[in-house]
Amino acid sequence: MAKEKTKLSSDTRHKSGNSAVKGTTAKRQSSNAYNKKSKATSSASKQKQDLGQKKSKTSPKKQKPLKIVPLGGLGEIGKNITLYDYDGEMFLVDCGMTFPDEETPGIDIVIPDFTYVVNNSDKIKGLVVTHGHEDHIGAIPYLLKQVNLPIYGTKLTIGLIEAKLREHKLVNTAKLNVVKAGDTVNLGKFSIELIHVNHSIPDAVALAIKTPAGTVIQTGDFKIDTTPIDSQVIDLGRFAELGKQGVLALLADSTNAERPGYTASERLVGESFSTLFKKAEKERIIVATFSSNIHRIQQIIDEAYRCGRKVAVSGRSMLNVVNIASELGYLNVPENLLIDIDMINRYLPEQIVVVTTGSQGEPLSALHRMAFGDHRQVGIVPGDMIIISATPIPGNEKLVNKVVNELMKQGATVVYEKMYDVHVSGHACQEELKLMLNLVKPKYFIPVHGEQKHLYKHAMLAKTMGLADENIMITNIGNTIELSQKQIRLAEVVQAGRVLVDGLGVGDVGNIVLRDRKHLAEDGVIVVVMTMDSATHEVVSGPEVISRGFVYVRESEELMEEVTEAACKAIEACYLANVHDWNTVKMRVRDSVSKFLYERTRRSPMILPIIMEV
Amino acid sequence: MAKEKTKLSSDTRHKSGNSAVKGTTAKRQSSNAYNKKSKATSSASKQKQDLGQKKSKTSPKKQKPLKIVPLGGLGEIGKNITLYDYDGEMFLVDCGMTFPDEETPGIDIVIPDFTYVVNNSDKIKGLVVTHGHEDHIGAIPYLLKQVNLPIYGTKLTIGLIEAKLREHKLVNTAKLNVVKAGDTVNLGKFSIELIHVNHSIPDAVALAIKTPAGTVIQTGDFKIDTTPIDSQVIDLGRFAELGKQGVLALLADSTNAERPGYTASERLVGESFSTLFKKAEKERIIVATFSSNIHRIQQIIDEAYRCGRKVAVSGRSMLNVVNIASELGYLNVPENLLIDIDMINRYLPEQIVVVTTGSQGEPLSALHRMAFGDHRQVGIVPGDMIIISATPIPGNEKLVNKVVNELMKQGATVVYEKMYDVHVSGHACQEELKLMLNLVKPKYFIPVHGEQKHLYKHAMLAKTMGLADENIMITNIGNTIELSQKQIRLAEVVQAGRVLVDGLGVGDVGNIVLRDRKHLAEDGVIVVVMTMDSATHEVVSGPEVISRGFVYVRESEELMEEVTEAACKAIEACYLANVHDWNTVKMRVRDSVSKFLYERTRRSPMILPIIMEV
Repeated sequence: MAKEKTKLSSDTRHKSGNSAVKGTTAKRQSSNAYNKKSKATSSASKQKQDLGQKKSKTSPKKQKPLKIVPLGGLGEIGKNITLYDYDGEMFLVDCGMTFPDEETPGIDIVIPDFTYVVNNSDKIKGLVVTHGHEDHIGAIPYLLKQVNLPIYGTKLTIGLIEAKLREHKLVNTAKLNVVKAGDTVNLGKFSIELIHVNHSIPDAVALAIKTPAGTVIQTGDFKIDTTPIDSQVIDLGRFAELGKQGVLALLADSTNAERPGYTASERLVGESFSTLFKKAEKERIIVATFSSNIHRIQQIIDEAYRCGRKVAVSGRSMLNVVNIASELGYLNVPENLLIDIDMINRYLPEQIVVVTTGSQGEPLSALHRMAFGDHRQVGIVPGDMIIISATPIPGNEKLVNKVVNELMKQGATVVYEKMYDVHVSGHACQEELKLMLNLVKPKYFIPVHGEQKHLYKHAMLAKTMGLADENIMITNIGNTIELSQKQIRLAEVVQAGRVLVDGLGVGDVGNIVLRDRKHLAEDGVIVVVMTMDSATHEVVSGPEVISRGFVYVRESEELMEEVTEAACKAIEACYLANVHDWNTVKMRVRDSVSKFLYERTRRSPMILPIIMEV
Repeated sequence: MAKEKTKLSSDTRHKSGNSAVKGTTAKRQSSNAYNKKSKATSSASKQKQDLGQKKSKTSPKKQKPLKIVPLGGLGEIGKNITLYDYDGEMFLVDCGMTFPDEETPGIDIVIPDFTYVVNNSDKIKGLVVTHGHEDHIGAIPYLLKQVNLPIYGTKLTIGLIEAKLREHKLVNTAKLNVVKAGDTVNLGKFSIELIHVNHSIPDAVALAIKTPAGTVIQTGDFKIDTTPIDSQVIDLGRFAELGKQGVLALLADSTNAERPGYTASERLVGESFSTLFKKAEKERIIVATFSSNIHRIQQIIDEAYRCGRKVAVSGRSMLNVVNIASELGYLNVPENLLIDIDMINRYLPEQIVVVTTGSQGEPLSALHRMAFGDHRQVGIVPGDMIIISATPIPGNEKLVNKVVNELMKQGATVVYEKMYDVHVSGHACQEELKLMLNLVKPKYFIPVHGEQKHLYKHAMLAKTMGLADENIMITNIGNTIELSQKQIRLAEVVQAGRVLVDGLGVGDVGNIVLRDRKHLAEDGVIVVVMTMDSATHEVVSGPEVISRGFVYVRESEELMEEVTEAACKAIEACYLANVHDWNTVKMRVRDSVSKFLYERTRRSPMILPIIMEV
């Protein structure tokens, strides 16, 4: 279904030195500024073997250690970014964002703190991206605004990055380079080979990073799917080969390290679609899924085609991805199958499948709007079969429940994850993680992409497979990991953390602002204003009390009068005590009002006393 | 382990007419005001059979219909309360609360809207409570403040209600009546028989409500545990008997209606504890669970005793429940086993088990404080084995994850639900729900206790068992259900909903206040104050701009100056246009500042313009 069907067996790859060079230098047919001085070149098998042999021949004592600095994605889910540093030459792997939570009210997205990257911008040769998910590419525009690095990724990945940069008006200056699985990107002392993996987005790769200190493999996000939709099975042979040659360290995806067994094949979801589409018979079908899960969308399209249904797409990101994926050949859409969402009412329900965003119950998403009767083109009618082809990301459970409940109230049949096999994960479960460890046989193991509990469970797996405790490193962002054949250890700590993006503001919302927002959300605000005569120190107007988010004022007039009284008393006391320093007066007003309110209501709204001087 | 070991087989019960009468009139050994005119009396088997026969003999046409009004617990999880009305005589089943969510910031608890209850207070004969969980008893103090109804429940249930009323200083006026499974409470035209069920708290009952219109069974929360810790299996025989006699309607717990199969026995958790306690060897063990799960606590105590460990209790609600349950004979604690939490450091780690609250990751709970180093007596040390014996309630997943991650960072071994069988549900899964339907064989089925999706799934189960669509009623709170042998239908709609409790305020936070709180949380507040001369309409002081939760002001001085300028311009424009109506001036200042900020920052803080007149 995807156009790019080159078989990625090691045979093919080892013979394809020239074509791979072609691949790396092929410019994307688009308006992006191509980095003509791209250092991305392909290495044929000969070179690879040389490197492998060189590594095993060279004495480790003479080599400087390799440094790996995780700047995001450890001890957290998302905002993945890792810096590699060999002898002062650096490059980055991935540059993702993460979503805000209840601790960051009002925030749009969370990106990594780029301080260390910016401080070393002259040493960083480029950014290699493993795949096109937001938690691996979402912060790229914010990085490029500070450091315009050349970026390397597979065709779909670069396509998605390009679309993102277009929105940020950065596409004309960006240096985007399309490479493909099997290719090698040379950045300074690093040779970075891309290895095909399976994931919930096509064109995902792991990286084999060859350095004078040894080879490091970073898996990116992966799973092992032996029957993937595009028939391109993860290149296990190549991992095995590298493992045989000797791998210094493995950095592997820990997202599903808590789950035993294997992740099911994406094909299983197709079988469920087939059953459910039959069951829907004369009814309309609406499928919500992640817009980036192009294989999932392909399966919906295929099944719709088989059932003689048209497909309409709803939701901005879904439209965006469907367009990019079709254009680049990752989606195979039969002619005349896609119809505009505005046209669906010209068809019978049984002739329609709507593919939509909103599988996480996001309040502004298309499915949410459908559920609550806010969608311009799609109103839910009794009988509609709605398939939510996704699992709620932790924290989104209640949002998804709300949408499911509302859809059911409208009389729809709702199929969601627990009931049928309408979703499979894109991440490797324990048995797959063990298989990867077994193939790569790394000297050192560094679990990445996960919260502490995921990293810990992944480390335990490695331990059961015989890795010694001292060769496993669970660490956190900002901690430099120094590795050589001799040892793995933590070296210097560098600045790392999160930067909050709120509207156009990047980093202007910090802990104080968040603390205030949480306080305001809990109990609201009470403003106490008075105008004072600067000469006589007397109140000439006020105090006036205004509240928001505290009580419904019309039904609490008495209480608000008492607040005014409490403020008056505090001002009077100051006046009588000859206290005329406005800051002190304000403080006393605050304390007095605050104390009164706590006793009276057991609540602690934010009190803002303001003195106007005349 | 619990003192009350009367076997509740139908044989025993049918012979125990007198002792049951004794049971119902036995006053709780405590200071509560006992309702001497209690109408609770026991019916011996003879009476029961009479009633059953009477029902089948009487012509349904002559009977008035029964009305059931769900006032909480449908289309939501929690705040369960149901009103039964036969010919103007009424009684209530349960009176629970629920917890706030992200839609109700700053709210402490959510209780039902009691308007309909208060308006009918002269007709309501009493409140029968099925068990002592917060979602069934938590709103009782708020109800009693408005209507002092007599309350009926089993010994533990009444004990927990009493403790709650003591906190609210209501215990001296409350009319509490202890009854037991097998007893019948007569309230006006209703005879309400209590039937023992299994649940995650002891002494839970279902109700068989006999009315002239027929018998209705309301299950309360239940599961079928054939090997419960107190050996008292759910009285399936009685359900079967009633089913044989003819049941008009079944109202059954839908919490787990999405889950196939059976809920495992509580005993399974004990086996896991046994394995884990052995594994912990020389380390300290900390177990977090729900304080009301007394059988769970019993199993921890038993296992600690077997391993020669002392048990310390942490967390206010845990201490409270352990005291009540021990006093009433529901917890069997070997002498000298319990030690004060202050004493734990006098023992070796291997001699200690701490039982604690915080299994939901609640920020103020004991386990949370331990994880973040805030607990006065318990600091986590590497090696501690921490067992979280609970499943996160939807919405609490991230809170629990946070605590797990933090505990792991301190070097503890953390065992949580996914990994071992350290928790089982207290609610019936699909096969148990089907069994209940099969035993009771109701004419009508009304799924209760659940969100729309749970009610729907439960209804589907009933349908697969042969119930006709028109005999199944999925409805919402406030809808009166009218039933007779002839039909089930929706009748009048009554006032029902939620009332928010915030500090001492009950119901003074409504939608406008919540909307303001959410707005404040998203973008903060900007106050623009100016003092105006009421005669000349000139600004004599200000405008002054104060912000909270918007930006970090010290780093955004320029922006704040621009805000002041925008306000100045708006005021000046008003002055030049001879607009001196303060409300109009305020509106223009708000619009102007708001527009400027949105263009500049893409944010929309709450703008509060204030004019002081001199």
